[in-house]
Amino acid sequence: MSKYRIGLFGFGCVGQGLYETLEKNIQLPADIVKICVKDPDKERPLAADAFVYDPKEILNDDTINLVVELIDDADKAFDIVQEALKRGKPVVSANKKMVAENLDRLIELQQIHRTPVLYEGAVCGSIPVIKTLEDYYSLEQIREIKGIFNGSTNYILTKVIEENKSYDEALEAAQANGFAETDPTLDVEGYDPKYKLSIVLQHAFGIHVHPDQIFNQGIQNITRADIAFARERGLKIKLLAKATRYEDRISAFVAPHFVSRESPLYHVENEYNAVLVNGDFANEQLLVGKGAGKLPTGLAVLSDVASITQDYQYILNREASDLSHSSTTEEVYVSFKSDETLDFSMFHVISEKYVGQQSGYVIGEIDIPALKTLLKDSSANVIFTSGARAETEIHKLTYSYEIG
Amino acid sequence: MSKYRIGLFGFGCVGQGLYETLEKNIQLPADIVKICVKDPDKERPLAADAFVYDPKEILNDDTINLVVELIDDADKAFDIVQEALKRGKPVVSANKKMVAENLDRLIELQQIHRTPVLYEGAVCGSIPVIKTLEDYYSLEQIREIKGIFNGSTNYILTKVIEENKSYDEALEAAQANGFAETDPTLDVEGYDPKYKLSIVLQHAFGIHVHPDQIFNQGIQNITRADIAFARERGLKIKLLAKATRYEDRISAFVAPHFVSRESPLYHVENEYNAVLVNGDFANEQLLVGKGAGKLPTGLAVLSDVASITQDYQYILNREASDLSHSSTTEEVYVSFKSDETLDFSMFHVISEKYVGQQSGYVIGEIDIPALKTLLKDSSANVIFTSGARAETEIHKLTYSYEIG
Repeated sequence: MSKYRIGLFGFGCVGQGLYETLEKNIQLPADIVKICVKDPDKERPLAADAFVYDPKEILNDDTINLVVELIDDADKAFDIVQEALKRGKPVVSANKKMVAENLDRLIELQQIHRTPVLYEGAVCGSIPVIKTLEDYYSLEQIREIKGIFNGSTNYILTKVIEENKSYDEALEAAQANGFAETDPTLDVEGYDPKYKLSIVLQHAFGIHVHPDQIFNQGIQNITRADIAFARERGLKIKLLAKATRYEDRISAFVAPHFVSRESPLYHVENEYNAVLVNGDFANEQLLVGKGAGKLPTGLAVLSDVASITQDYQYILNREASDLSHSSTTEEVYVSFKSDETLDFSMFHVISEKYVGQQSGYVIGEIDIPALKTLLKDSSANVIFTSGARAETEIHKLTYSYEIG
Repeated sequence: MSKYRIGLFGFGCVGQGLYETLEKNIQLPADIVKICVKDPDKERPLAADAFVYDPKEILNDDTINLVVELIDDADKAFDIVQEALKRGKPVVSANKKMVAENLDRLIELQQIHRTPVLYEGAVCGSIPVIKTLEDYYSLEQIREIKGIFNGSTNYILTKVIEENKSYDEALEAAQANGFAETDPTLDVEGYDPKYKLSIVLQHAFGIHVHPDQIFNQGIQNITRADIAFARERGLKIKLLAKATRYEDRISAFVAPHFVSRESPLYHVENEYNAVLVNGDFANEQLLVGKGAGKLPTGLAVLSDVASITQDYQYILNREASDLSHSSTTEEVYVSFKSDETLDFSMFHVISEKYVGQQSGYVIGEIDIPALKTLLKDSSANVIFTSGARAETEIHKLTYSYEIG
């Protein structure tokens, strides 16, 4: 008998990925003994007797000593996780929304019940972001962490920008390939990468910022004109999550960015994710890997299961009493329909303005709360320029990229 | 008083980097209490009373409970490490030659004395290669691991190929910037990346291959004609270390490779290192970071010190009884002076041959032992083509790269 008996909640894409990776892994002392799913009538790749339908069948089972939570519903997931911890069962979760929204409480519960929760699979699929931040970068001061945190939108942007597909075609292809979540709005409107960024803030800077406090703009309003603008200037558009330290302040947001060929992120396409860490000692480090898909995310969850069997827990040792989250002034490009009236007085500086027959744009510097007001109830789109403020002061790239 | 009292051997570039990173890190329960150096008369950035000159002063000091070994001499380093382990003192080393040549014995000694040795700093500077292989990829079957394992030669190649510098100018610049080791031949002839590859083989595939058994060709024979050839075909030349699994065999070597724009390694320049891992679950993952320099390597050593304070040790859990190292047939480009006679009958296939007034080249398939014979006592140069064999079967890249 294996030492670890797993009760699994959810048997979607990632749950099946875990099942497959765990079956192929004979060295790990862990077995899935019960799988709890919602719908008894749904067809599944395993026989019906593998499944239970009442969470209590796992939570009340004293022989189960590890809970893996992989369901969609964040609130139900949090209930399950709380119950499991109360009963001293360690938890592995890949639910980014649940973790991001409840991180303070999860940290507290782990301390009270001396039972760990791990959630590598919640952030950037197969890339070991949390583990690397915890075990390696915890020793140094991080200046900036940014990247492509959502595989689905990166896939869509690649198809739309590089292959001239329509947005709808691209979204359908992403869903057909299993890269898009059940509800695509979480991806395309930038919520999914925001949850991940909120989790990363805890492990990179030691502060918990609730996702509601983080600005997010997705890719849903990007127009053909925006893409043409990027192409003319030799840029790509990438949906980036970004957190930058300015002395005692952390600025964090999710938004489409113009990215030039000199950035390593320019070259990361399709469902790949990338995390670029800039620290005092290591300088710049890049991690690239599949951010979505059954087996890549399955591996991340499997690695957490293995870590639990080795009594691993997050140390969460950043001391951040002096840090606060605050919004910054950023250089942005805002595009709009020519007949729409926007209050440009909210910009500190406008460096370019163009109005054509159908659409126009401005480029200028604006505070993020003002930007939020500007975009509210508008079909206007914003793309951050990755301009002077962020790129030259904080994040001077030392890779040499050939301009082809 | 700190829990861990460190005895440090060597106070060169990395030793000073460790000292600096450790001083800035107040959370780590570890202090350097003695530094053993060779030459009492050398000027150093610390006062003379910080140093001792006899290894016994550290090894026989029962209050010292962690030895960090950062000296150049691999044999002396191994003596120190053996003595330390015998006395139950955990060891952190960044000596790639010492580790690679003695890995079997180091694993044995750790088991006998139940005392760990960690050596993250020995492989690719700031990139946490060993840790990631141990803690994350240990759960999956790795198909291939390859990359730019030497910052010094990558810096030289960048200057020579991209900036048209002479080889000597580029080497001098690398040394002036602290990217080249005390003896540059270890770097430029491909020994340094070979030591690293030997260590990686243990952690990625579970087999120890002594560096003497691994083919290495450096960059010292690359000619202007080779560079012109690469440019004409839109390729770069990169010194790659590469290990590929073919069923029950592992092929491993270090050699210059032609690399096309589609490869993520094409974009990694200057002193940066890169490691590209291809596994069954995660598919392709890329890690990029500074492979040389005081603080980046200092951070890797610091992270090992932190791991020791957390009772971490390498699990080394790959079962590889069925794997053996054997050489393969590879497609290579061999360039030579026109007046030199080479025995081309050793090629299985020759697909291109050119002979000009001064120099010529052939492209063809050859077994690695035959290639070694061909190159012996010759000024001929070889560049692996990264051709069909390796790239299309094993390692089909799924990144999309724009051809500029």
